Amino acid sequence: MQRIAIDMDEVIADFNSKHLSVFNREYNETLTARDLMGTRLRELRPHLKNEIIAYLKDPEFFSDLEVMKDSQEVIRELSEQYEVFITTAAMEFPTSFSAKYAWLKEHFPFLDELNFVFCGDKSIIHADYLIDDNHRHFQRFQGQGILFTAPHNINETGYVRVNNWLEVREYFKSN
Amino acid sequence: MQRIAIDMDEVIADFNSKHLSVFNREYNETLTARDLMGTRLRELRPHLKNEIIAYLKDPEFFSDLEVMKDSQEVIRELSEQYEVFITTAAMEFPTSFSAKYAWLKEHFPFLDELNFVFCGDKSIIHADYLIDDNHRHFQRFQGQGILFTAPHNINETGYVRVNNWLEVREYFKSN
Repeated sequence: MQRIAIDMDEVIADFNSKHLSVFNREYNETLTARDLMGTRLRELRPHLKNEIIAYLKDPEFFSDLEVMKDSQEVIRELSEQYEVFITTAAMEFPTSFSAKYAWLKEHFPFLDELNFVFCGDKSIIHADYLIDDNHRHFQRFQGQGILFTAPHNINETGYVRVNNWLEVREYFKSN
Repeated sequence: MQRIAIDMDEVIADFNSKHLSVFNREYNETLTARDLMGTRLRELRPHLKNEIIAYLKDPEFFSDLEVMKDSQEVIRELSEQYEVFITTAAMEFPTSFSAKYAWLKEHFPFLDELNFVFCGDKSIIHADYLIDDNHRHFQRFQGQGILFTAPHNINETGYVRVNNWLEVREYFKSN
């Protein structure tokens, strides 16, 4: 059985909406995902970089992210024909462990928690496919990388790209 | 550069001494590692299985385990010639995440936290070697499994076995 590894933030968990929301509230701004096209919040407001990263160190930040549209349904389907693992670079924010685990158990109860992986360097992942919004994880990955569109990666070329979960479904149907 | 994945409990962290100590204290027993040869505490005292497992759900249980003899020195040496990853089946005890992370940062400060992996099913691990006390993790592992002797596994045969960290050093010297 082939194996699909799937990232969390910006792939199944709507990281940007929450991040923009807490930032806009604190700094009285009205930034949207459109403002992040080809960039990241910390590059758009470099003088607030430390504050922007500090939000992610709040143990609760990751607890109430919205689920990305159609991800539950498509992953449930995929899990009937593939081994599905959730592989998230949680080591960058170790305060996030508990919230990420609880979030996965809440929103993807049909996945086995033994298939959750909290890591840093994703070259440790042994899988046939990796769906991720960060192309850097594909450099040393030996399977097929699939770039999930996120504002920061819209200008990246040279990767298999999917724009949403319906396109993920199509990719694996025609594969 | 070749990669070595290393388990935590009973390999670099002395899980048994702590587990026996809290059990002996609560039940006024004097069990030692010798009593666990070829078995496990929960099999030796099956009527207390739930209590024995419950200790591991205490978020602090894993915070003060002793470091296995010679593991720091040998892993420091290995990390000069190999990529070293710490791969622990933490998903079985999600309350252990923070303590395990802090323990690794305290006792193995020379390792990069991006090389820590909290997982469940270790077939997700992409490495050339896996040093582990649980042979079940070798079944679907594509690299070389190296069984680290622990009381529960002394009767297992058919695996490359090391009895301590000095033998790990020898294995990689002659390999």
